[in-house]
Amino acid sequence: MARVIVDVMLKPEILDPQGQAIARALPRLGFSGVSEVRQGKRFEVEIDGPADEAALAEVRKMAETLLANTVIEDYSVRVEAE
Amino acid sequence: MARVIVDVMLKPEILDPQGQAIARALPRLGFSGVSEVRQGKRFEVEIDGPADEAALAEVRKMAETLLANTVIEDYSVRVEAE
Repeated sequence: MARVIVDVMLKPEILDPQGQAIARALPRLGFSGVSEVRQGKRFEVEIDGPADEAALAEVRKMAETLLANTVIEDYSVRVEAE
Repeated sequence: MARVIVDVMLKPEILDPQGQAIARALPRLGFSGVSEVRQGKRFEVEIDGPADEAALAEVRKMAETLLANTVIEDYSVRVEAE
């Protein structure tokens, strides 16, 4: 068993209205010193076997196919727990 | 400038229909060996000053107030880049 994390964020050049709405709300809630907020998705994928290179390649394919829209999003894959 | 990451996931005891839908779709797309998928949110918060303890405490307060629904979600805060 291993837990693989897939983080999916909008590409930097893509407008992030959700992140902007949060950044605008923070001062009204009394927070300062935040220049930008970007919001994305986080997936925790529990895989049966070890998180070896083959398993990570498989998770990358899952990200390409299902978890991220690679036209507007970037993704990263990392192992969180063996 | 520093980038602080806030990861927000549903509490383990809370049903995650989105994650379940993904886990069910993976075999149909030819993927195997995945026992569970959970989906959450990832926030990248760019702060003006250094990511010292005071700044992290402020980001935790943002998470409590705005980024997470602490009734059903857990959150974690970490520094990604100084």
